[in-house]
Amino acid sequence: MTVIEQLPPTRTTGGGPLRRLLRLRPEVDVTAQGEDVELAHPWGRQRVHALGAATVTALDALTREDADLDELATRQVRLLKLLERFPYLVTTTVADLLGAPLATAVPIARSAALPGFARVGGAAVLSRFAYLRRLPDGHGEACVLESPMAPFRLTLHQPAAGAFVAALTTARPVAEAAAMAGLSAEEGEALAGLLAGGGFLDAGSGSEAPLWDFHDLLFHARSRPGRHDYPTGGVFAHQDIDQLPAVSGAGAREEGPGIDLPVPEWDTVVARDPALSEVLEGRRSVRQYADTPVTLEQLGELLYRVARVRRIIPGDPADPHGYDGVDRPYPAGGATGELEIYLSVVNCVGLEPGVYRYDAAAHRLRHRVFHHPGEKQAYHELMTAAWRATACTVDPQVLLTVTTRFGRLSWKYSQIAYALTLKHVGVLYQTLYLVATAMGLAPCGLGSGDTDAAARALGLDWTAESSVGEFLIGSRPADVPRTATGFADIVTEAREG
Amino acid sequence: MTVIEQLPPTRTTGGGPLRRLLRLRPEVDVTAQGEDVELAHPWGRQRVHALGAATVTALDALTREDADLDELATRQVRLLKLLERFPYLVTTTVADLLGAPLATAVPIARSAALPGFARVGGAAVLSRFAYLRRLPDGHGEACVLESPMAPFRLTLHQPAAGAFVAALTTARPVAEAAAMAGLSAEEGEALAGLLAGGGFLDAGSGSEAPLWDFHDLLFHARSRPGRHDYPTGGVFAHQDIDQLPAVSGAGAREEGPGIDLPVPEWDTVVARDPALSEVLEGRRSVRQYADTPVTLEQLGELLYRVARVRRIIPGDPADPHGYDGVDRPYPAGGATGELEIYLSVVNCVGLEPGVYRYDAAAHRLRHRVFHHPGEKQAYHELMTAAWRATACTVDPQVLLTVTTRFGRLSWKYSQIAYALTLKHVGVLYQTLYLVATAMGLAPCGLGSGDTDAAARALGLDWTAESSVGEFLIGSRPADVPRTATGFADIVTEAREG
Repeated sequence: MTVIEQLPPTRTTGGGPLRRLLRLRPEVDVTAQGEDVELAHPWGRQRVHALGAATVTALDALTREDADLDELATRQVRLLKLLERFPYLVTTTVADLLGAPLATAVPIARSAALPGFARVGGAAVLSRFAYLRRLPDGHGEACVLESPMAPFRLTLHQPAAGAFVAALTTARPVAEAAAMAGLSAEEGEALAGLLAGGGFLDAGSGSEAPLWDFHDLLFHARSRPGRHDYPTGGVFAHQDIDQLPAVSGAGAREEGPGIDLPVPEWDTVVARDPALSEVLEGRRSVRQYADTPVTLEQLGELLYRVARVRRIIPGDPADPHGYDGVDRPYPAGGATGELEIYLSVVNCVGLEPGVYRYDAAAHRLRHRVFHHPGEKQAYHELMTAAWRATACTVDPQVLLTVTTRFGRLSWKYSQIAYALTLKHVGVLYQTLYLVATAMGLAPCGLGSGDTDAAARALGLDWTAESSVGEFLIGSRPADVPRTATGFADIVTEAREG
Repeated sequence: MTVIEQLPPTRTTGGGPLRRLLRLRPEVDVTAQGEDVELAHPWGRQRVHALGAATVTALDALTREDADLDELATRQVRLLKLLERFPYLVTTTVADLLGAPLATAVPIARSAALPGFARVGGAAVLSRFAYLRRLPDGHGEACVLESPMAPFRLTLHQPAAGAFVAALTTARPVAEAAAMAGLSAEEGEALAGLLAGGGFLDAGSGSEAPLWDFHDLLFHARSRPGRHDYPTGGVFAHQDIDQLPAVSGAGAREEGPGIDLPVPEWDTVVARDPALSEVLEGRRSVRQYADTPVTLEQLGELLYRVARVRRIIPGDPADPHGYDGVDRPYPAGGATGELEIYLSVVNCVGLEPGVYRYDAAAHRLRHRVFHHPGEKQAYHELMTAAWRATACTVDPQVLLTVTTRFGRLSWKYSQIAYALTLKHVGVLYQTLYLVATAMGLAPCGLGSGDTDAAARALGLDWTAESSVGEFLIGSRPADVPRTATGFADIVTEAREG
């Protein structure tokens, strides 16, 4: 297990050949005004008064060149203290014996302090959350090490640094990893110190968040602001690509004019609709069906009340950020309208078994014809998986597969797009549950489904449009009540008892 | 740009010093019965008839040792044809000039074919979706290269292979990358061929799914079955850790006995509740408030109807998979009950400004007292971010922050846990929207929020319990109608017109 002894970040390196070099992030703008200085950067601006002309000059130089930490600590204490006040604006580099940079720690969160010096003893091993990748164009072509646990991004300047990281995927002494990577023992020590100080080594003792899967923690830390420095939210990062149409066009291998679905009458629906709380408190997953299956008319009413396109709100074509909004009965952040519904039908009165796309703007079903056996096999795989997801309690009548036309979201939103689409799936699930319950149908949301099998059955390119939700609809047995008659629960019991 | 010429996977390597070695995955069990053979593995079983005793023996040997592809292609054609039928059971290794393995491609999806030979010309560059990491304990300590685009996982056996990957984070000729990594040109060519054939290089021309962020595509491919081989679903992978309590205990720095919230009367609620569709069709985000703010009684009714714990369903303590279910009004996969609600109050009749935790089992608010300025500052940061998220249209009255006690889910579910919790957040959003609308409150779901700021304001360790949703509640102006009076939309307009 890695033994990491954290040392103060401003400890001098003792004048040895290996130096720690500090610099201001390239995003920082320094404006000197006499003895004052203003630091402007994407996260705000700071004004520092009465710094002294020499320190102002030295600070300004830090936007163009590195400063040696040892020199700062002995000759520029005032400047070093200032950098310690704004650690998230300072990059830290370790260099090799020839003075060429090996790796640079770039702070990515406001919570980052200057990366600590750390002396790594025993066998060192990489954190299981660290990952090395290519950071493409927008950020300069670079080899970076990132981790959801670390408030830094490490830029690796030499392939040997990548080899050192690869060597530490197995626990071993730092000197051994250095030798395997073709680095000297001192270079290995300096690099390991930066890795440990930046939060990229496993410090042992359960500090590695054992209950998180790798992809889950990575996604959590990157899909929300706070722990990274990537532009987030309505960034409109893809102006070079046309925005996807608000409403999905015809899919592959759809045949025939489609099946117009009946439009329910408002007065009829409201007259037989229970009150909201009767539905909400009575709602449950129903995994048993009546002998007579669900009907086409019922599916039509359900889809209309839950998922039709009510209105398209055109964006201003002259505005590069003009965005066509899609209004449906359920809420969606930014009116993105990216979710689509496909029906895999086994048993439905009035509808042949097979796969259909719900054309939500025309309120119509479009039949997808299978052209080779793999597609039909994938449809059977979907139905078998749905049957297993109900603990094999019921033969599915109709499986709704929810897909996302992901580019609708990501054309507008950066970092948060997939998290948004999954929240929308949840919104859609609850809307399906409530309307199906009010209608006396049997609803059951499923926990997951096979992305590749769905792409084959539905005829989709999984990077363009991909399954994100699964929901079963069937006919409800007469003896399963659809509405509640009270709030009975542990709170009311405790207060009444 | 990388120019990749794909060659047939069974092309021989021409007898040069660099060999391609095939083997069966360690998960495959071969049972020979005379001239027949059965292949059993985690994804099913296959029976092959009349294979011939010599081929059966050679196939069995492939569970223990590699076979040279050139030898198979010239002397064991029948065995090679068999391997081509079951490519997802076969690993492919390239070795260095001394015969030591450099990298092994392990198929992780049923869709994987044998990795193609590929001749990489021009400047090669790593896919922006590829990442190198340590694959920990359960899968053996290994250095792997993965990518959501690739149906393979690449195990890198030598740090030099890691250096080669790091060198290819910048576009450059393969021979140059090989030299930088300390490999020969032939070794570099063999390794680049496996990287390209496995799907880890950027093949240019928009094949890199430009609309996907790195973390989004990675998460999509790993959080659902179909494109990876990690155990997925109700795996109960953390038997060494106690399951988290069904109901959250007291948080840090909560003071006083708490505030019992009023319990609404069923008959009163149902009498004033509109019909489901009147609420559903009338629901909208309301970003303007009445002069008199929302009241404590209204918050109590809203939280009770949406988020209280109705019942705890104890798991069997004798069953290692026994799991305490939590029943709330809104649906959740596996009755996991991981979501909690915190209230940041600015303006509410009957409630002091500050931060409160909703104790959902006792239907009570617990006040969190700030002990140092950073906590209070974080509370102001949350409110400012919420104000910005409404496009600065309204001064927030009450911000609900939804957190996930993530370990509740991941103790039971592998791979799908975080995707499930985000779907639950969506379910909760829609439930809040509908009940708030029925009550005549002003609801508004927000798209995202700052993880670190929320952890500071709410006093949470972000890896144990972390914010995943934000929702504003306020008082609704009298002139904003709460219910709809019809289905008006483009479908009905078109059919009536």
